[in-house]
Amino acid sequence: MSPADIRFDERGLVPVVVQEATTGAVLLLAYMNAEALEATLRTGRAHFWSRSRARLWRKGERSGREQIVEGLYVNCEQNSLLLRVHQQGGAACHTGHPTCFYRKLAPDGSWQVVEEWDFDPAEVYGRTPSRD
Amino acid sequence: MSPADIRFDERGLVPVVVQEATTGAVLLLAYMNAEALEATLRTGRAHFWSRSRARLWRKGERSGREQIVEGLYVNCEQNSLLLRVHQQGGAACHTGHPTCFYRKLAPDGSWQVVEEWDFDPAEVYGRTPSRD
Repeated sequence: MSPADIRFDERGLVPVVVQEATTGAVLLLAYMNAEALEATLRTGRAHFWSRSRARLWRKGERSGREQIVEGLYVNCEQNSLLLRVHQQGGAACHTGHPTCFYRKLAPDGSWQVVEEWDFDPAEVYGRTPSRD
Repeated sequence: MSPADIRFDERGLVPVVVQEATTGAVLLLAYMNAEALEATLRTGRAHFWSRSRARLWRKGERSGREQIVEGLYVNCEQNSLLLRVHQQGGAACHTGHPTCFYRKLAPDGSWQVVEEWDFDPAEVYGRTPSRD
């Protein structure tokens, strides 16, 4: 089989778990279409399909925090991918946290922030995204 | 915010990255609906929604390879989850591999198996699932 055997869903997308290759941290979950997959493999830099913006998105295109591909893995059912990367510039999340999964469910049912900020997003994007 | 603030998609599902808490290995990507999330939090054992079987699915219900929850994390946009678990019995994948992401894309465009089998699935499930 080849990358052509990946089972994209009815939207033409496949979910991609992005993991920092060095630390093992799960950075984010994103989606690729065939174009994003091709661009990722061709450039060695993570590209995704932004569902909210409906366009191809190169990770770090604004922040410079790009992701250099270490390896691409496919699951048993060929309907999800694992992309292991070397995250440049520390933080992967647009909120400034190292990963997008910076909140952990506490016993009282609240979400508690368990990661410090790595950068101030206002300095990168000119605004402070919501992160409650 | 609380678990009630998770943004399930139009199918009532949220994608869940499952990671082994001890090793950091990404085990699988699965989906939860509200019922699976509630069962997971109530029991401390991973439950998912099986899209192919259209039913609630407790991980390990047939194989005994259940996943004991270490922690649940939500992403910045509240539309994906990270479940860190202690995988029981070694392998997480129904193919017998330690994780579902046992194939890595090689430079020639083929997928190469990079994980050994942990168990023979024929002995657990009575048949050998496809894994090519």
